[in-house]
Amino acid sequence: MLQKDRYYMKQALLEAQKAFNKKEVPIGAVIIFEEKIIARSYNLTKTLNDVTAHAEMQAITAASTALGGKYLINCTIYVTVEPCIMCAGALALSQIKRIVYGMNNKKQGYHRVSHSFFHSKTTVTNGILAEESLALMKYFFQNKRQK
Amino acid sequence: MLQKDRYYMKQALLEAQKAFNKKEVPIGAVIIFEEKIIARSYNLTKTLNDVTAHAEMQAITAASTALGGKYLINCTIYVTVEPCIMCAGALALSQIKRIVYGMNNKKQGYHRVSHSFFHSKTTVTNGILAEESLALMKYFFQNKRQK
Repeated sequence: MLQKDRYYMKQALLEAQKAFNKKEVPIGAVIIFEEKIIARSYNLTKTLNDVTAHAEMQAITAASTALGGKYLINCTIYVTVEPCIMCAGALALSQIKRIVYGMNNKKQGYHRVSHSFFHSKTTVTNGILAEESLALMKYFFQNKRQK
Repeated sequence: MLQKDRYYMKQALLEAQKAFNKKEVPIGAVIIFEEKIIARSYNLTKTLNDVTAHAEMQAITAASTALGGKYLINCTIYVTVEPCIMCAGALALSQIKRIVYGMNNKKQGYHRVSHSFFHSKTTVTNGILAEESLALMKYFFQNKRQK
Protein backbone atom coordinates (compact mmCIF):
# COMPACT_ATOMS: atom_id res chain seq x y z
CA MET A 1 0.00 0.00 0.00
CA LEU A 2 2.68 2.46 1.04
CA GLN A 3 4.56 2.07 -2.23
CA LYS A 4 1.39 2.69 -4.24
CA ASP A 5 0.47 5.60 -2.02
CA ARG A 6 3.87 7.16 -2.58
CA TYR A 7 3.56 6.66 -6.34
CA TYR A 8 0.18 8.36 -6.59
CA MET A 9 1.18 11.14 -4.20
CA LYS A 10 4.19 11.77 -6.41
CA GLN A 11 1.69 12.32 -9.25
CA ALA A 12 -0.22 14.80 -7.08
CA LEU A 13 3.09 16.57 -6.33
CA LEU A 14 3.71 16.90 -10.07
CA GLU A 15 0.35 18.69 -10.26
CA ALA A 16 1.36 20.91 -7.33
CA GLN A 17 4.51 21.82 -9.25
CA LYS A 18 2.33 22.97 -12.18
CA ALA A 19 0.47 25.28 -9.76
CA PHE A 20 3.82 26.59 -8.50
CA ASN A 21 4.90 27.36 -12.06
CA LYS A 22 1.74 29.47 -12.46
CA LYS A 23 2.45 31.34 -9.20
CA GLU A 24 -0.48 29.60 -7.55
CA VAL A 25 -0.30 28.16 -4.01
CA PRO A 26 1.26 24.80 -4.94
CA ILE A 27 -1.33 22.14 -4.14
CA GLY A 28 -2.11 19.23 -6.44
CA ALA A 29 -4.47 16.25 -6.48
CA VAL A 30 -5.22 13.06 -8.39
CA ILE A 31 -8.19 10.69 -8.12
CA ILE A 32 -7.77 6.94 -8.65
CA PHE A 33 -10.36 4.39 -9.76
CA GLU A 34 -9.38 0.75 -10.29
CA GLU A 35 -5.70 1.72 -10.04
CA LYS A 36 -6.01 4.26 -12.85
CA ILE A 37 -5.73 8.02 -12.54
CA ILE A 38 -9.08 9.41 -13.72
CA ALA A 39 -8.53 13.04 -12.67
CA ARG A 40 -5.52 15.33 -12.25
CA SER A 41 -5.73 18.90 -11.05
CA TYR A 42 -4.00 21.73 -9.25
CA ASN A 43 -4.98 24.87 -7.44
CA LEU A 44 -6.13 27.62 -9.84
CA THR A 45 -7.79 30.15 -7.52
CA LYS A 46 -5.65 33.05 -8.69
CA THR A 47 -5.76 32.25 -12.41
CA LEU A 48 -9.53 31.73 -12.38
CA ASN A 49 -10.28 34.46 -9.79
CA ASP A 50 -12.34 31.90 -7.91
CA VAL A 51 -11.94 30.71 -4.31
CA THR A 52 -13.71 27.47 -5.22
CA ALA A 53 -11.01 26.42 -7.73
CA HIS A 54 -9.04 24.30 -5.27
CA ALA A 55 -7.31 21.19 -6.62
CA GLU A 56 -9.71 18.81 -4.86
CA MET A 57 -12.85 20.55 -6.16
CA GLN A 58 -11.68 20.36 -9.75
CA ALA A 59 -10.60 16.75 -9.26
CA ILE A 60 -14.03 15.77 -7.89
CA THR A 61 -15.79 17.38 -10.87
CA ALA A 62 -13.39 15.76 -13.36
CA ALA A 63 -13.67 12.31 -11.74
CA SER A 64 -17.48 12.52 -11.76
CA THR A 65 -17.35 13.37 -15.46
CA ALA A 66 -14.97 10.47 -16.13
CA LEU A 67 -17.19 8.00 -14.26
CA GLY A 68 -20.51 9.41 -15.47
CA GLY A 69 -21.88 9.54 -11.92
CA LYS A 70 -21.63 11.96 -9.04
CA TYR A 71 -20.55 9.53 -6.31
CA LEU A 72 -16.92 8.48 -5.98
CA ILE A 73 -17.64 5.46 -3.78
CA ASN A 74 -14.78 3.32 -5.11
CA CYS A 75 -12.24 6.09 -5.61
CA THR A 76 -9.22 7.39 -3.71
CA ILE A 77 -8.04 11.00 -3.77
CA TYR A 78 -4.40 11.90 -3.24
CA VAL A 79 -3.86 15.53 -2.34
CA THR A 80 -0.58 17.11 -1.30
CA VAL A 81 -2.01 19.20 1.58
CA GLU A 82 -4.73 18.53 4.17
CA PRO A 83 -8.06 19.60 2.59
CA CYS A 84 -9.77 22.80 3.74
CA ILE A 85 -13.33 22.76 5.08
CA MET A 86 -14.89 23.40 1.66
CA CYS A 87 -12.97 20.54 0.05
CA ALA A 88 -13.54 18.17 2.98
CA GLY A 89 -17.25 18.99 2.74
CA ALA A 90 -17.21 18.21 -0.99
CA LEU A 91 -15.34 14.94 -0.39
CA ALA A 92 -17.95 14.02 2.22
CA LEU A 93 -20.73 14.67 -0.31
CA SER A 94 -18.93 12.55 -2.92
CA GLN A 95 -18.81 9.56 -0.52
CA ILE A 96 -15.24 8.91 -1.67
CA LYS A 97 -13.75 5.67 -0.35
CA ARG A 98 -10.34 6.93 0.76
CA ILE A 99 -8.58 10.25 1.28
CA VAL A 100 -4.78 10.37 1.33
CA TYR A 101 -3.05 13.64 2.01
CA GLY A 102 0.49 14.85 2.54
CA MET A 103 1.26 17.69 4.92
CA ASN A 104 -1.06 18.95 7.65
CA ASN A 105 -2.54 22.44 7.36
CA LYS A 106 -3.15 23.75 10.87
CA LYS A 107 -4.51 27.12 9.74
CA GLN A 108 -6.87 26.13 6.93
CA GLY A 109 -7.27 22.33 7.24
CA TYR A 110 -10.58 20.68 8.12
CA HIS A 111 -9.25 19.28 11.40
CA ARG A 112 -9.55 22.71 12.98
CA VAL A 113 -13.34 22.30 12.80
CA SER A 114 -13.95 18.57 13.09
CA HIS A 115 -12.10 15.27 12.90
CA SER A 116 -14.97 13.28 11.51
CA PHE A 117 -17.45 14.58 9.04
CA PHE A 118 -16.77 12.25 6.15
CA HIS A 119 -19.01 9.40 5.05
CA SER A 120 -18.87 6.53 7.55
CA LYS A 121 -17.11 4.26 5.03
CA THR A 122 -14.41 6.81 4.13
CA THR A 123 -10.89 6.20 5.47
CA VAL A 124 -8.17 8.84 5.79
CA THR A 125 -4.38 8.47 5.62
CA ASN A 126 -2.04 11.42 6.10
CA GLY A 127 1.67 12.18 6.04
CA ILE A 128 2.44 10.57 2.64
CA LEU A 129 5.38 12.52 1.12
CA ALA A 130 4.54 15.29 3.56
CA GLU A 131 8.11 16.61 3.59
CA GLU A 132 8.13 17.09 -0.19
CA SER A 133 4.82 18.93 -0.05
CA LEU A 134 5.99 21.11 2.85
CA ALA A 135 9.24 21.95 1.05
CA LEU A 136 7.32 23.10 -2.03
CA MET A 137 4.90 25.20 0.03
CA LYS A 138 7.72 26.78 2.07
CA TYR A 139 9.67 27.62 -1.08
CA PHE A 140 6.55 29.22 -2.59
CA PHE A 141 5.78 31.43 0.41
CA GLN A 142 9.44 32.39 0.96
CA ASN A 143 9.71 33.50 -2.66
CA LYS A 144 6.44 35.42 -2.35
CA ARG A 145 7.59 37.33 0.71
CA GLN A 146 10.85 38.31 -0.94
CA LYS A 147 9.06 40.03 -3.83
CA MET B 1 -33.64 45.66 5.99
CA LEU B 2 -36.32 43.02 6.40
CA GLN B 3 -38.27 44.19 3.36
CA LYS B 4 -35.11 44.09 1.21
CA ASP B 5 -34.17 40.72 2.63
CA ARG B 6 -37.58 39.35 1.74
CA TYR B 7 -37.32 40.78 -1.78
CA TYR B 8 -33.93 39.18 -2.46
CA MET B 9 -34.92 35.91 -0.83
CA LYS B 10 -37.95 35.83 -3.11
CA GLN B 11 -35.50 36.00 -6.01
CA ALA B 12 -33.57 33.08 -4.54
CA LEU B 13 -36.86 31.16 -4.22
CA LEU B 14 -37.55 31.77 -7.91
CA GLU B 15 -34.19 30.08 -8.59
CA ALA B 16 -35.15 27.20 -6.29
CA GLN B 17 -38.34 26.79 -8.33
CA LYS B 18 -36.20 26.40 -11.47
CA ALA B 19 -34.31 23.58 -9.73
CA PHE B 20 -37.64 21.99 -8.79
CA ASN B 21 -38.76 22.13 -12.42
CA LYS B 22 -35.62 20.19 -13.37
CA LYS B 23 -36.28 17.57 -10.66
CA GLU B 24 -33.31 18.83 -8.66
CA VAL B 25 -33.46 19.34 -4.89
CA PRO B 26 -35.03 22.84 -4.93
CA ILE B 27 -32.42 25.22 -3.52
CA GLY B 28 -31.68 28.62 -5.05
CA ALA B 29 -29.31 31.52 -4.39
CA VAL B 30 -28.58 35.07 -5.46
CA ILE B 31 -25.60 37.31 -4.65
CA ILE B 32 -26.02 41.07 -4.23
CA PHE B 33 -23.44 43.82 -4.69
CA GLU B 34 -24.42 47.48 -4.29
CA GLU B 35 -28.09 46.48 -4.28
CA LYS B 36 -27.84 44.69 -7.62
CA ILE B 37 -28.11 40.98 -8.25
CA ILE B 38 -24.78 39.93 -9.77
CA ALA B 39 -25.33 36.16 -9.64
CA ARG B 40 -28.34 33.83 -9.78
CA SER B 41 -28.11 30.07 -9.48
CA TYR B 42 -29.81 26.88 -8.42
CA ASN B 43 -28.81 23.39 -7.46
CA LEU B 44 -27.70 21.33 -10.47
CA THR B 45 -26.02 18.31 -8.89
CA LYS B 46 -28.18 15.79 -10.70
CA THR B 47 -28.13 17.49 -14.11
CA LEU B 48 -24.35 17.99 -14.01
CA ASN B 49 -23.57 14.72 -12.19
CA ASP B 50 -21.47 16.72 -9.76
CA VAL B 51 -21.81 16.97 -5.98
CA THR B 52 -20.06 20.35 -6.05
CA ALA B 53 -22.80 21.98 -8.20
CA HIS B 54 -24.75 23.42 -5.26
CA ALA B 55 -26.48 26.77 -5.78
CA GLU B 56 -24.04 28.64 -3.52
CA MET B 57 -20.92 27.28 -5.25
CA GLN B 58 -22.16 28.35 -8.66
CA ALA B 59 -23.22 31.74 -7.28
CA ILE B 60 -19.76 32.34 -5.77
CA THR B 61 -18.05 31.52 -9.07
CA ALA B 62 -20.48 33.70 -11.05
CA ALA B 63 -20.17 36.65 -8.63
CA SER B 64 -16.36 36.47 -8.75
CA THR B 65 -16.54 36.55 -12.54
CA ALA B 66 -18.93 39.52 -12.43
CA LEU B 67 -16.68 41.46 -10.05
CA GLY B 68 -13.37 40.40 -11.62
CA GLY B 69 -11.97 39.40 -8.23
CA LYS B 70 -12.16 36.35 -6.04
CA TYR B 71 -13.20 38.01 -2.77
CA LEU B 72 -16.83 38.94 -2.14
CA ILE B 73 -16.08 41.34 0.74
CA ASN B 74 -18.95 43.73 0.00
CA CYS B 75 -21.51 41.16 -1.13
CA THR B 76 -24.50 39.42 0.43
CA ILE B 77 -25.68 35.93 -0.51
CA TYR B 78 -29.34 34.92 -0.17
CA VAL B 79 -29.85 31.18 -0.19
CA THR B 80 -33.13 29.39 0.48
CA VAL B 81 -31.65 26.65 2.72
CA GLU B 82 -28.89 26.67 5.36
CA PRO B 83 -25.60 26.03 3.52
CA CYS B 84 -23.88 22.64 3.83
CA ILE B 85 -20.29 22.36 5.08
CA MET B 86 -18.79 22.59 1.59
CA CYS B 87 -20.73 25.76 0.77
CA ALA B 88 -20.11 27.32 4.17
CA GLY B 89 -16.40 26.60 3.70
CA ALA B 90 -16.49 28.27 0.28
CA LEU B 91 -18.36 31.29 1.70
CA ALA B 92 -15.69 31.55 4.41
CA LEU B 93 -12.95 31.55 1.77
CA SER B 94 -14.79 34.24 -0.20
CA GLN B 95 -14.87 36.55 2.86
CA ILE B 96 -18.44 37.44 1.95
CA LYS B 97 -19.92 40.26 4.05
CA ARG B 98 -23.30 38.76 4.85
CA ILE B 99 -25.07 35.42 4.57
CA VAL B 100 -28.88 35.29 4.63
CA TYR B 101 -30.60 31.94 4.51
CA GLY B 102 -34.14 30.64 4.77
CA MET B 103 -34.87 27.28 6.39
CA ASN B 104 -32.52 25.39 8.68
CA ASN B 105 -31.05 22.09 7.53
CA LYS B 106 -30.38 19.96 10.58
CA LYS B 107 -29.05 16.98 8.65
CA GLN B 108 -26.73 18.63 6.13
CA GLY B 109 -26.32 22.23 7.36
CA TYR B 110 -23.00 23.62 8.58
CA HIS B 111 -24.28 24.16 12.13
CA ARG B 112 -23.96 20.45 12.82
CA VAL B 113 -20.19 20.90 12.69
CA SER B 114 -19.56 24.45 13.90
CA HIS B 115 -21.42 27.69 14.52
CA SER B 116 -18.55 29.99 13.65
CA PHE B 117 -16.13 29.31 10.89
CA PHE B 118 -16.83 32.30 8.68
CA HIS B 119 -14.60 35.34 8.31
CA SER B 120 -14.70 37.50 11.45
CA LYS B 121 -16.49 40.31 9.58
CA THR B 122 -19.21 38.06 8.11
CA THR B 123 -22.70 38.31 9.60
CA VAL B 124 -25.43 35.67 9.29
CA THR B 125 -29.23 36.08 9.26
CA ASN B 126 -31.55 33.09 9.04
CA GLY B 127 -35.28 32.36 8.83
CA ILE B 128 -36.09 34.75 5.95
CA LEU B 129 -39.04 33.24 4.02
CA ALA B 130 -38.17 29.94 5.71
CA GLU B 131 -41.75 28.65 5.45
CA GLU B 132 -41.82 29.13 1.67
CA SER B 133 -38.52 27.31 1.31
CA LEU B 134 -39.64 24.49 3.59
CA ALA B 135 -42.92 24.11 1.69
CA LEU B 136 -41.04 23.74 -1.61
CA MET B 137 -38.59 21.20 -0.16
CA LYS B 138 -41.38 19.18 1.45
CA TYR B 139 -43.37 19.13 -1.77
CA PHE B 140 -40.28 17.96 -3.67
CA PHE B 141 -39.47 15.09 -1.30
CA GLN B 142 -43.12 14.01 -0.96
CA ASN B 143 -43.44 13.82 -4.74
CA LYS B 144 -40.16 11.91 -4.96
CA ARG B 145 -41.25 9.28 -2.45
CA GLN B 146 -44.53 8.73 -4.28
CA LYS B 147 -42.76 7.78 -7.50
